[in-house]
Amino acid sequence: MSLSAAPRDERRSVGFGLLGYGFMAKAHSHALLTLPHIHWPSAARPQLVAIGGRTEAAVREAATRYGYESWTTDWHDLVADPRVAVFDNVAADAAHVEPTLAAIAAGKHVVCEKPLASSAAEARRLYEAAAAAGVIHLTGFNYRFFPAVRLAWALIHEGELGELRQVQIRYAQEWRTDPAAQLPSPTGVVDIIGCHAIDQARYLCGEIEAVAAVITRITPTRTFRAGPAETDDAVAILARLAGGLVATIEASLIAPGRKNHLAFEISGARGSLAWSLESPNRLRVHRRGPGRLGGFTDVLATEPEHELAAPWWPAGHVLGWEHGHVNMLAHLLDAVAGTRPLGPHGATFLDGLRAAEVAEAVERASASGTWEAVEHTAAEPDGGGRR
Amino acid sequence: MSLSAAPRDERRSVGFGLLGYGFMAKAHSHALLTLPHIHWPSAARPQLVAIGGRTEAAVREAATRYGYESWTTDWHDLVADPRVAVFDNVAADAAHVEPTLAAIAAGKHVVCEKPLASSAAEARRLYEAAAAAGVIHLTGFNYRFFPAVRLAWALIHEGELGELRQVQIRYAQEWRTDPAAQLPSPTGVVDIIGCHAIDQARYLCGEIEAVAAVITRITPTRTFRAGPAETDDAVAILARLAGGLVATIEASLIAPGRKNHLAFEISGARGSLAWSLESPNRLRVHRRGPGRLGGFTDVLATEPEHELAAPWWPAGHVLGWEHGHVNMLAHLLDAVAGTRPLGPHGATFLDGLRAAEVAEAVERASASGTWEAVEHTAAEPDGGGRR
Amino acid sequence: MSLSAAPRDERRSVGFGLLGYGFMAKAHSHALLTLPHIHWPSAARPQLVAIGGRTEAAVREAATRYGYESWTTDWHDLVADPRVAVFDNVAADAAHVEPTLAAIAAGKHVVCEKPLASSAAEARRLYEAAAAAGVIHLTGFNYRFFPAVRLAWALIHEGELGELRQVQIRYAQEWRTDPAAQLPSPTGVVDIIGCHAIDQARYLCGEIEAVAAVITRITPTRTFRAGPAETDDAVAILARLAGGLVATIEASLIAPGRKNHLAFEISGARGSLAWSLESPNRLRVHRRGPGRLGGFTDVLATEPEHELAAPWWPAGHVLGWEHGHVNMLAHLLDAVAGTRPLGPHGATFLDGLRAAEVAEAVERASASGTWEAVEHTAAEPDGGGRR
Amino acid sequence: MSLSAAPRDERRSVGFGLLGYGFMAKAHSHALLTLPHIHWPSAARPQLVAIGGRTEAAVREAATRYGYESWTTDWHDLVADPRVAVFDNVAADAAHVEPTLAAIAAGKHVVCEKPLASSAAEARRLYEAAAAAGVIHLTGFNYRFFPAVRLAWALIHEGELGELRQVQIRYAQEWRTDPAAQLPSPTGVVDIIGCHAIDQARYLCGEIEAVAAVITRITPTRTFRAGPAETDDAVAILARLAGGLVATIEASLIAPGRKNHLAFEISGARGSLAWSLESPNRLRVHRRGPGRLGGFTDVLATEPEHELAAPWWPAGHVLGWEHGHVNMLAHLLDAVAGTRPLGPHGATFLDGLRAAEVAEAVERASASGTWEAVEHTAAEPDGGGRR
Repeated sequence: MSLSAAPRDERRSVGFGLLGYGFMAKAHSHALLTLPHIHWPSAARPQLVAIGGRTEAAVREAATRYGYESWTTDWHDLVADPRVAVFDNVAADAAHVEPTLAAIAAGKHVVCEKPLASSAAEARRLYEAAAAAGVIHLTGFNYRFFPAVRLAWALIHEGELGELRQVQIRYAQEWRTDPAAQLPSPTGVVDIIGCHAIDQARYLCGEIEAVAAVITRITPTRTFRAGPAETDDAVAILARLAGGLVATIEASLIAPGRKNHLAFEISGARGSLAWSLESPNRLRVHRRGPGRLGGFTDVLATEPEHELAAPWWPAGHVLGWEHGHVNMLAHLLDAVAGTRPLGPHGATFLDGLRAAEVAEAVERASASGTWEAVEHTAAEPDGGGRR
Repeated sequence: MSLSAAPRDERRSVGFGLLGYGFMAKAHSHALLTLPHIHWPSAARPQLVAIGGRTEAAVREAATRYGYESWTTDWHDLVADPRVAVFDNVAADAAHVEPTLAAIAAGKHVVCEKPLASSAAEARRLYEAAAAAGVIHLTGFNYRFFPAVRLAWALIHEGELGELRQVQIRYAQEWRTDPAAQLPSPTGVVDIIGCHAIDQARYLCGEIEAVAAVITRITPTRTFRAGPAETDDAVAILARLAGGLVATIEASLIAPGRKNHLAFEISGARGSLAWSLESPNRLRVHRRGPGRLGGFTDVLATEPEHELAAPWWPAGHVLGWEHGHVNMLAHLLDAVAGTRPLGPHGATFLDGLRAAEVAEAVERASASGTWEAVEHTAAEPDGGGRR
Repeated sequence: MSLSAAPRDERRSVGFGLLGYGFMAKAHSHALLTLPHIHWPSAARPQLVAIGGRTEAAVREAATRYGYESWTTDWHDLVADPRVAVFDNVAADAAHVEPTLAAIAAGKHVVCEKPLASSAAEARRLYEAAAAAGVIHLTGFNYRFFPAVRLAWALIHEGELGELRQVQIRYAQEWRTDPAAQLPSPTGVVDIIGCHAIDQARYLCGEIEAVAAVITRITPTRTFRAGPAETDDAVAILARLAGGLVATIEASLIAPGRKNHLAFEISGARGSLAWSLESPNRLRVHRRGPGRLGGFTDVLATEPEHELAAPWWPAGHVLGWEHGHVNMLAHLLDAVAGTRPLGPHGATFLDGLRAAEVAEAVERASASGTWEAVEHTAAEPDGGGRR
Repeated sequence: MSLSAAPRDERRSVGFGLLGYGFMAKAHSHALLTLPHIHWPSAARPQLVAIGGRTEAAVREAATRYGYESWTTDWHDLVADPRVAVFDNVAADAAHVEPTLAAIAAGKHVVCEKPLASSAAEARRLYEAAAAAGVIHLTGFNYRFFPAVRLAWALIHEGELGELRQVQIRYAQEWRTDPAAQLPSPTGVVDIIGCHAIDQARYLCGEIEAVAAVITRITPTRTFRAGPAETDDAVAILARLAGGLVATIEASLIAPGRKNHLAFEISGARGSLAWSLESPNRLRVHRRGPGRLGGFTDVLATEPEHELAAPWWPAGHVLGWEHGHVNMLAHLLDAVAGTRPLGPHGATFLDGLRAAEVAEAVERASASGTWEAVEHTAAEPDGGGRR
């Protein structure tokens, strides 16, 4: 015999243009390189058309590293290229709005990392533009795409917990503990990690209606490169959700010993759930009343029965942090290919907007010392249901 | 040879009169029966003079069971007896004020279980009477007397954590989850367990200055025996403490799967601590910055170096729930004997009052939907320092 | 009204004579002082008649401390006293045989701390004497008396795990890690802690039939006071149990970081159990096959449904180390009073003998480098069943 | 501006020919697709030349799925292709020897999944052939390539634990618990997972010199497809290692509740380490003696200081199961490129042979009921040091 050429991959090819070349570019590019062989078979596969960013040497290197066909230091090139079907914005927060709006205007589907924008007004512009254009829009809330989190969502929505009553969500890291720490970003705690906690609350438990909050700043000034940086280091939020549900939502960049501790506990009339990102494959589930064998069960969400785990490895072979992004972008491609809807699991720009609206209410509440209502500046789309 | 009679126990005998015969009477009586041989040698030992309560059969049985010399169904008898040096009130919450005031008037030292009183005004009466009388007064905040909690106090007060920045305290139980559950007490969540969380915040981190809060009630009515009962089932509090410290304090009787989960995490500029009552001998301690061997260390607080553990067993031989009461009443006896001050570790009636003041601010905040200041209705005693 | 004298405790009084005044004397005395009011009501209560030991000052002090009526430096006095119904031997290992035999000869019920004897031959003498005399005999295997361990026993014996297949038991401490460490006892690792692991294997899983073993000694000599001490610091055992069950049994006094880590995992055809003495109230239970919600459930064995927990505190209020002794001696008193049999939960002298037989097989196996059968030097009593 | 073509990846291209298309082919292919952008920059990158296997449809699909240029149902084609520099054998165990020997004969570097061969004699043939040919040879012991395991290796070899004294290693899964379970492989527990436990013992602690062992079979017959399968379901091993170190090594496919529980605890004169594959990013480290703050520290091995973690994500962003294979094959490529030696971290065919020698001693020991020495059938290569 002799070797035969491999059959062509007949899946629909979907061109990606990526803006950014840092940590998030690494996560998204890795996802694009991984999902075609993990989420197999599928309707579509990504084509890494181009990558853009401001620093030529870095963008060129990233293009080679991740296998993008081309590169540019001008994001307009990404938007203008007809091969680009999805504009994936993983640039610095300040570069989220204008390029994404331009991509929408060019008819691209759009992905934008969190926070969608630094204000609710800007987030609303993005959402409304995307909705009006009819393109698919995804905000990068990757923590929705862990099998254990998906299991939590399923248990809640199937009613296994009964009516929800209490929620605690906390995202704690330690790298800003030192007042003189070098900052990788000029933004504050809500934009960096707090929005993930807010999105988990919304995704799992429903809309946040009002908040009381305290923002902590351990130093009056910080700098990022030459300029000033936000000094919001921690936030504690007391929230009322739809249906009278009460939540505490906390985020901190100054929690010594906590590396990447996004954790929730959710309890309802018939059960409770607990999860932590530092052991992301485990969901602790309590469903029974008191009794001889009651207690939290430590479920390793790696079984064939566990959605999002099944495409990966056999039972017990755990996933890591980046698998959320792989699953998220695979989900997006399915949406682009039309094989499943983006929502409710994929966070849309409306979810990005809602997080920004909550963030603004939090800021107001911390400043005013009173409860503040979360103002919905754009309505849910017609048709009922969520998304 | 032959047997010789045992030498008399020459320690000063301190007479106790106990009011109550339920769960807390069991805990206090067990402590009184245990501390003489565990906290050995010591300056004083208790004499179980008398026990009182309203139901004759139950009080008579308790007298025999715990070895009280006498019993009564009229608490005035306890107060009137000259052998009683310490009046220990473990009766139902509604019976805290009048008998304790009478005991103070009779010159007794007084112990009163939490909550000290059902209102700050009544707690203030108790505190001011005890302070004016010059008797020793202890509120039953037993969780101060676990070795791991004492270690936390020591690390904080020795500055090992640096300036404190964030606190989470939560006390969660599940037994009221069912709206139709039989209640063992007519009071609400703050009085039942929330005050313990409030006291831990104060003991470890300092005074609470203002609160936002939401109280959850899962049913508009509950009954206790014939009458109505409080329907406060859960509370979530956002608190500002002295020095700008921010805390979330939560208590719930409707948290499925949580049996007796009093837990805190406290972080400062240089370290963090975490503890839970369900594994009460462990303090998780993080003191270092990032690095190859950073992380939380699981300290089993049973070594000779651990205060309150040393009188008990060798290293690794864990204590249980009731040991807090044993250590607390041993501490009280030392104070009565004059060998050490009651404070700062023993909670005085001022601490009981402070907890009541916080509880009232929490109620106001939940009703008003605004932040409420905690009003100190009695001043700290003269002389500086705490207590 | 006025105070009334407490009714007499009408329970049958059972006189105890205790030999020893160290750590174990503290544990047993505390148990005797505690069980009357915790295990209430009951048929009998202990009378602390006398305590004996070689060092007068220490024995005198112990008599006062624990409330024994009298003391002696000659154990014959304990045996001779007609008020002593139970001779409780908590003396140094070397003083287990002769005094206990004398007590049996005098018709006393006997309790003897582990190891029952330093050789199987001596243990056999004790067992056969006690059995012939018809007295009640208990070996101090206290770890059978934790609620979580009792739950494990119940689940196994009710068939919840199906046929047992694998067992791991390990008892690890760290205090002998330093080759120059001061020793509190001249005996080796099997007598100090290994016999507890052996007893757990037998109690939960059945008889040990053969062993391969390696004994580790980190120094050729150690001293205890003036004389030489055993230098067996650790032992690893591979064991075959009845029915083809395979176990690894390990004990170590040189395991840094392990304070008092007695732990087991037992798995059968339908489930698994795991427990550790450092968190003694928790039993981890797995009973289901793979599936969406499979996994170990963390059962806090403090519910009313949990045998041995029920007499203590409400759900979630955990027990500590010494509660095993309290429950064990309460169980003994029930046996003395005839209200329940000692076995299968109480370890008899036959259990003490069996542990010694295993220990000898382990020594032979370590020396010979071959598997060694465990030789049963005394038969089970007639009548079938275990005890 | 306009898009520029991405610069060529100038790294040396190393052709891979993969034999197999199942679970391990997925893991290796994923690794080859991932390491170029994660382990960046590097000296070499893989070229996915060809994939082979017996079932045409499956091989064709795998070629497309993973991006191999060509495919074949005849492994000779892989060996014959001059573009193939590395022959990576992930085929069924029975296909390890002949194709790998042929690849060596053709001058290819060779990777072979564990077990290297089903007998020590065959493993020896492979090792000796590879050593004689001077090619690079790697056995697929991927668990050496987790950051937390690498940290354990470093701490041990830097002497942080002092002289090693005790080791426990256990690999437990549950999928063969049912006697009627469908088997994915006809081999027994040692070849499936036990060899990983054996390799961890050797890698971290040194050579295994002698073993006692018991193999458990829960059913006399099992079938794999049409034919008979090995019925070794569990094995318990007591081992002596070089320097007098004692280990228990266990493996089980019939441990209900254990999904993929490879775990070790290693203790020495000055410290201890513990790790589990179900939480693979955590190494529990104890280094201090008893004291106020002693205990195991929970190190999340995701910091920049942690070898093998650094190429991936920021601190606290955990890795999953497959990252071991990515790191392992990146390591192999470095060895091929000559930028670092394969050993001691990469397992060579000598390590595969050693594991097979231990496995045979285990079989002999279980059959004979005596200790059996591990026979080294090939010597270490000259030049001192390990590899």
